[in-house]
Amino acid sequence: MPEDFIIGAKLTELVDRIVNSYQAEPRTQHIDKFFLPSHDRIVQLCRDLLELVYPGFIGRQHLTKHNVAYHVGDLLPRISEALYRQIYLCLCYVDENQHGSNRNELHCGGQARSTTLTYLEQIPSIRKMLAGDVQAAYDGDPAALNLHEVILAYPGLLAISIQRLAHALYRLDVPLMPRIMSEWVHNKTGVDIHPGARIGQNFFIDHGTGVVIGETTEIGDSVKVYQGVTLGALSFPKDERGRVIREAKRHPTVCDNVTIYANAIILGGDTVIGENSVIGGSVFVTSSVPPNSTVTIKPPELRLKQRDESKIAKPAPDTPSGSMPDYMI
Amino acid sequence: MPEDFIIGAKLTELVDRIVNSYQAEPRTQHIDKFFLPSHDRIVQLCRDLLELVYPGFIGRQHLTKHNVAYHVGDLLPRISEALYRQIYLCLCYVDENQHGSNRNELHCGGQARSTTLTYLEQIPSIRKMLAGDVQAAYDGDPAALNLHEVILAYPGLLAISIQRLAHALYRLDVPLMPRIMSEWVHNKTGVDIHPGARIGQNFFIDHGTGVVIGETTEIGDSVKVYQGVTLGALSFPKDERGRVIREAKRHPTVCDNVTIYANAIILGGDTVIGENSVIGGSVFVTSSVPPNSTVTIKPPELRLKQRDESKIAKPAPDTPSGSMPDYMI
Amino acid sequence: MPEDFIIGAKLTELVDRIVNSYQAEPRTQHIDKFFLPSHDRIVQLCRDLLELVYPGFIGRQHLTKHNVAYHVGDLLPRISEALYRQIYLCLCYVDENQHGSNRNELHCGGQARSTTLTYLEQIPSIRKMLAGDVQAAYDGDPAALNLHEVILAYPGLLAISIQRLAHALYRLDVPLMPRIMSEWVHNKTGVDIHPGARIGQNFFIDHGTGVVIGETTEIGDSVKVYQGVTLGALSFPKDERGRVIREAKRHPTVCDNVTIYANAIILGGDTVIGENSVIGGSVFVTSSVPPNSTVTIKPPELRLKQRDESKIAKPAPDTPSGSMPDYMI
Repeated sequence: MPEDFIIGAKLTELVDRIVNSYQAEPRTQHIDKFFLPSHDRIVQLCRDLLELVYPGFIGRQHLTKHNVAYHVGDLLPRISEALYRQIYLCLCYVDENQHGSNRNELHCGGQARSTTLTYLEQIPSIRKMLAGDVQAAYDGDPAALNLHEVILAYPGLLAISIQRLAHALYRLDVPLMPRIMSEWVHNKTGVDIHPGARIGQNFFIDHGTGVVIGETTEIGDSVKVYQGVTLGALSFPKDERGRVIREAKRHPTVCDNVTIYANAIILGGDTVIGENSVIGGSVFVTSSVPPNSTVTIKPPELRLKQRDESKIAKPAPDTPSGSMPDYMI
Repeated sequence: MPEDFIIGAKLTELVDRIVNSYQAEPRTQHIDKFFLPSHDRIVQLCRDLLELVYPGFIGRQHLTKHNVAYHVGDLLPRISEALYRQIYLCLCYVDENQHGSNRNELHCGGQARSTTLTYLEQIPSIRKMLAGDVQAAYDGDPAALNLHEVILAYPGLLAISIQRLAHALYRLDVPLMPRIMSEWVHNKTGVDIHPGARIGQNFFIDHGTGVVIGETTEIGDSVKVYQGVTLGALSFPKDERGRVIREAKRHPTVCDNVTIYANAIILGGDTVIGENSVIGGSVFVTSSVPPNSTVTIKPPELRLKQRDESKIAKPAPDTPSGSMPDYMI
Repeated sequence: MPEDFIIGAKLTELVDRIVNSYQAEPRTQHIDKFFLPSHDRIVQLCRDLLELVYPGFIGRQHLTKHNVAYHVGDLLPRISEALYRQIYLCLCYVDENQHGSNRNELHCGGQARSTTLTYLEQIPSIRKMLAGDVQAAYDGDPAALNLHEVILAYPGLLAISIQRLAHALYRLDVPLMPRIMSEWVHNKTGVDIHPGARIGQNFFIDHGTGVVIGETTEIGDSVKVYQGVTLGALSFPKDERGRVIREAKRHPTVCDNVTIYANAIILGGDTVIGENSVIGGSVFVTSSVPPNSTVTIKPPELRLKQRDESKIAKPAPDTPSGSMPDYMI
C-alpha cells in the first residue's frame, strides 16, 4: 500500500493545520531556535558514565589490569566530547531563551570546556561515594547475596548513582541536563531524587518505587530510606503576584544514621530529623524530631469482622488477647 | 559451541512438549488467528506522535519556519500509515474474536481509514490542551526552570500527553490500542491513567509515581494531583452470575481547581469532589466533598520515644511546646 | 571537532587518576576476574522466554498450527544456548568469588547444562500457571476487555510472568540471574517481587506500581493484590556481630482467596493472613489474621473546613447527615 494511501489529497490541508497550530501555540514547539540539549544523547551519556564508574560490571566486560587503561583511554574522550556538547547546548540554550540572543556562544564554549574538565576530575571522588552506597545496600538488605548483585540489579543504587553524577553537574551550574538525567532514572526505577538534593555517604534506598526527594533536601551520612518515602515541601512561598518563589529551602534536613520506613512523609524546609532517629512506616511529620528518637504512628484502630458470623472476630491465636496488632514499623 | 550443543537430541521432545502445551492452553497463545495489533509498532507510534505534538523537542531538532512544513509533510504520511494499520488490526481483531469470522475485513478497512483521518484532524486541539498542561506544570512546581524543562523531563507531562492521545482513540471506539499506549507510559512513568478517563484543561501531576486514575473518572479544569494518588472504584456491580459488569461509572468526579496531595485515595462512582477543594495527603474518601472544602486527616497520634532514655522525648526546639507536629498537607 | 579536543593533553593524567581510583576501590570494579553474567543478555533472554510462553502475542506474529513447531524449534536452541551461557557464568562467578579460584569450571559447565534442560522441561507447567494468572486478571478487572488485552498490556501480568520464570531458576539454585530478571521487570512495571517468593495459582496484581513482595513470602491460590501493597519484613534477625542473618522466614504467609487493597502493609515472617480474608486499603498488620476476616482501618477522623466561611462545613448532600464519609476499603 503506497504510503500516502491513507491521507492522499488531504495531506496539504492537514500539514497546514498542524503547522498553523505550531505557530498559534509557541509554548509547545521549539522552532527557529538554535540550542537545545538532546534527551537521547544525555541518556546515552548516563550509560557511558555508569560504565566509567562501575568498570567491568556495565558495558564492556573482561577488563584486566593490562587492558583497563586502554579501555578508559578510549571511553573518556567519547564521554568528554558528549559531555562538552550537551553542556554547551544547555548553556547556549539559557542564553538564547533568557537573554534573547546568542551573543555568548563563544563564552559558552569556553565555559562548557572548563566545566567538562572539572567534572571529569571529580569522577574518582564520586566513585568513592558510590562504593559507600554499594556497601550500605549490602549491609542493609538480608536478601543481597553480595556487593556485585547490588551493582548489577538494585534500582536504589542505580538511582543514587545517577543522582550523584547529576548533582555534580548541578553544583557546576549546568542547567537542564541534571534534571534530564534524574528523570531518566526516575522513569527506570520509580525513584525521584532531584539533582539538587545534597546526600551524604552510605545512602541506601530499599525497593525504591515511589520515593520522592525534593530539590533542597539535605541528607547526612548512613541514612536508609524505604519505598514510598517522600521528603517534600510543605508549602511554597509566593510573591506579591501569587507566583511561587523559586528558591529558598523548601525540603527537610535528615541527619546522620536516620532510618525512614515505607511510605513515611516528611515535609517542610525547617523540618530537621535528628541523628540516629527512626521514622516508622506511614509516619507523617512536618516539624522537627530530636536526635535518637523513634517516631511511630499510633496505628488507626483495626476493625476485624468475621464474614461468616457477621460479628467481631476473636483475635488470632498469635495475637495478644484483647489487643490489636501492634505495628512498630 | 554449536547452537544445539545444549539441547542436542532432546530438541524434538522438548518442542513437542511445548507445542502440545500451546494446544492444551488456548488462553495464552494466538495461533491460527490472523489479526492482532503490534505492541512494538504502537510504541513507535507513540514516539512519533510525541514528535508531532512537541516539534523540535522530541525527535528531529533544528526546525525552522522554512523547513517545518516539509518535516511535518514527511512525518505525517508515516504516522497515518502506522495508525491506519494498527487501527485496522484492532478492528479486525475484534471481528475475528467476537464474531467468529473475519467477514468484515473490507468494512474494517474503511472504518480504519476514516478513524485515522478524524484522529489526525484532532491533533491541533490536542496540542492546545497539552500547552495548558505544560503551563500548569511550570506554574505549580517551584523546581521547574521553564516550560521547556517540563517538556523535556517531566514524567507527569509525558503521562498526560499519551493519555490525551490515547483518549482521542478511545472516544473513536478503537479497541485495545489506547490501553496499549497508556500501559506503555505507565511502565515508563509509574503513572497509570486509563485512556477512558475524561480530563479537563491544565492538568498537572507532580512526581507521579503510583498515581492511578480509573476508566470512568471525570476531572475538571486546573486540577493538580501528587504522587501516589488513587482515583479508584469502590466496588464492582455484579450480574446475577456474580461476574463484574463492565460498564457504568465506577470512579469519582473531581471538579475544577481541586488539588489532591500525595497518597490520597478517592473511591466510588458517586463520589464528587466539589470545585476549589483541597484534599490533604493520605486522606481516604468514599463519599462526596462540598465545594471550597479543605479535607485533611486528623493525623494518627505519634509516639516519640527517646532511644537512650526510654521515655517520651521533649519536643524539638522548633516544635511548639507540648504539641505534636501538625500535618496539614 | 576532533574527539580529543576537550581533554587534549590532559587525557593521560585523567586516565591515570581514574584507573588509580579503580585500584583504590575494589568494591565497585570487576577487573582481573573472568566470570560475570551479562545484564543485557539476561534482559534479552527474558524477552525470548516471554515469546516462548505467549506465542503469537509477543515477538513473531502469524503463527499457525502448521508453522508453530518450526518456530519453536528455531527459538528453543537460541534460548537454551543463552540460558546455558548465563547460568554457566553465574555458577563460575560464585566459584571464582566465594572459593577464590575457578577450579570448578568443568563442573559448572555440567551443572549449567543439566539445569538448563531441567528448566526448559518446566516451561509447560509454568505456562499453565500463567494461564490461570491471565484468567484471574480478566475476572478481577471490569476494565479488561478480554484475555488478550491482559497479555498485551497489563503490567501486573508481566511482573508475575517474569517472577514465575525467575522463581524456577531460583529453585534450581542459580545465583544472581533470577534477581537480575526480577529487577528488570521491577524497573519496567514498578512491581518488585523477589524471585524467591512462592506464589500459588490465579494471582492477580491490579495497577501494580509500588507493590513489594519479599523473598520468603508465601502466597496461596487466587490471591488478589492492589497497587502499593507491601508484604515485607518486620525486622532482621542479627548475629552476635550485629550483621543481618541472610536466611529464615522474614516475610508473611497469605492463604487462599485473600484480597489485599491498595497500600496495605503486612509485615513479619510469623504473620499469616487466613484464607478468604479481605485486607482493606492502607491497613497495617504485623500479626496474624484469622480466616474469613475483613480487616479495615477505623479511618482517621477527617477535618472538613469550608474555605470561604472558615468553619466546619455541612456534610455534602449525598453524605449521611452528621456522619463523616465511611471508607470500607
